[in-house]
Amino acid sequence: MAGSLLDGALAEVAADVDARFDAWLTIPDDARADLYRAMRHAAIGGGKRLRPLLTRATADLFAVDRDCSGRVGTAIEAIHVYSLIHDDLPAMDDDAMRRGKPTVHIAFDEATAILAGDCLHALGFEVLADPATHPDPFVRAELVLDLARAAGPTGMAGGQMMDLEAERSRFDLATVTRLQQMKTGALITAAVEAGAILGRVAPEGRVGLRGYAHDLGLAFQIADDLLDAEGDEELAGKKLRKDEVAGKETFLSLLGVEPARQRCAMLVDQAIEHLRHYGAEADLLRAIARYVVERDH
Amino acid sequence: MAGSLLDGALAEVAADVDARFDAWLTIPDDARADLYRAMRHAAIGGGKRLRPLLTRATADLFAVDRDCSGRVGTAIEAIHVYSLIHDDLPAMDDDAMRRGKPTVHIAFDEATAILAGDCLHALGFEVLADPATHPDPFVRAELVLDLARAAGPTGMAGGQMMDLEAERSRFDLATVTRLQQMKTGALITAAVEAGAILGRVAPEGRVGLRGYAHDLGLAFQIADDLLDAEGDEELAGKKLRKDEVAGKETFLSLLGVEPARQRCAMLVDQAIEHLRHYGAEADLLRAIARYVVERDH
Repeated sequence: MAGSLLDGALAEVAADVDARFDAWLTIPDDARADLYRAMRHAAIGGGKRLRPLLTRATADLFAVDRDCSGRVGTAIEAIHVYSLIHDDLPAMDDDAMRRGKPTVHIAFDEATAILAGDCLHALGFEVLADPATHPDPFVRAELVLDLARAAGPTGMAGGQMMDLEAERSRFDLATVTRLQQMKTGALITAAVEAGAILGRVAPEGRVGLRGYAHDLGLAFQIADDLLDAEGDEELAGKKLRKDEVAGKETFLSLLGVEPARQRCAMLVDQAIEHLRHYGAEADLLRAIARYVVERDH
Repeated sequence: MAGSLLDGALAEVAADVDARFDAWLTIPDDARADLYRAMRHAAIGGGKRLRPLLTRATADLFAVDRDCSGRVGTAIEAIHVYSLIHDDLPAMDDDAMRRGKPTVHIAFDEATAILAGDCLHALGFEVLADPATHPDPFVRAELVLDLARAAGPTGMAGGQMMDLEAERSRFDLATVTRLQQMKTGALITAAVEAGAILGRVAPEGRVGLRGYAHDLGLAFQIADDLLDAEGDEELAGKKLRKDEVAGKETFLSLLGVEPARQRCAMLVDQAIEHLRHYGAEADLLRAIARYVVERDH
């Protein structure tokens, strides 16, 4: 039951996100054509769409209109995709494959990749601030603030900077935890929080959902570390075992495989426990938490 | 008189923008220290601060609180500075000097430059959406929408993509005009429009100001082309005559020096003419328009 609930939602969200990007990124008949092709290459057809799924599943708790949560989730995915494009650049993680396809700077060139990332970044905020996304400007402004904080130097981009430094430093578990909370956790939390903002939940009413997102984000990262160490490159669609080669400390290197697996399972239980005040309407969020550790890519 | 009005405003805005960036970009005591140092290097102490000056001068027409227009103008400058950092990257315009200092990827490294740009981009939207910037969420959401459109693929970043293509194509005057309206004009127009949004001017009441900004943006670009061809590298603080070497069509190459100078002067007159419904309160905007052609860097 939980499996089919999740499978259905994953498939629906994937189709919805692709359709929205397709509509937003119509290729213009001018010198920007490659810029749009590059954005489409990165944004359409690939990825688990975890962030839009979380926004929708959270917004569903409060019976938010699906078009609204779909637009917001896809705007958040645009910001996620921009970060992947920039992280893959030669000066950063220097990755040639992503989601089973050549990365943007390989399929196009570096300049186009930088600009495609910049454009998806701006596009995310444009959609969040657009009256077509939500009629209430208070909701729109709060969504922008939520996402801008999660994307900037105290969130995703700050975490990526720490991650680059990790090759040169010996980080301890507390520092790796903080790094990952910024690098991947902040945007995951923002995606859940966006659903609550759409549901008009006041900040003090979001404690449980924020706790869920926090634990889910860490579990997600530990699962990622495990997949990086033990996974299949074909299934993952990208190069694996790079952290080990670079000598970076990760949850895995610091904890060891079995303790890491246990901590991951414990965090998933804890994430689900944060949803105790919700009934069956939160079953999708619970299924997402379990999926995060059970996925094979 | 007009000279001292402008000089005073230029100096005040420069000090105000520097003070705000200094407060926003406190260097943290962790692995992100270089990221913040890089943002400070690019954002503090340099540039004409034309965009914050335009936001303040426009907001002043409507007696907007100076702290409010200062925050918004500095957020717009953050977006402008992010674009300069990315434009200077080796994969883009490959510039080693900017505002008389080494560019960010030279003073730090490419990864730090990419992330510093990304962070200033997010920071700009964070400030615009922050309740501390303006109490009315409608104003905040409109500011974000205004800036996101100006920064994205239909504005600044789209114009930069066209500019990169300009080396490979032979653009005509209409295409160069469109390119420049996107690359530099969109953000200049957004800076003026932001002042009008803060002044609670309805979109239909912004026609004159938008006309002013449109003509100012083009005049600014032609003046830039003239400075690029005839200016002093020391004064400009960056490498000049790159377009000519790259074989790019510009206003200058398409029009010739004297016709370009005349067109620039004509656009300034036209920009000022758009302000005819305003009295002495718009003298600073008029002085800015004249300054744009008369400046030597």
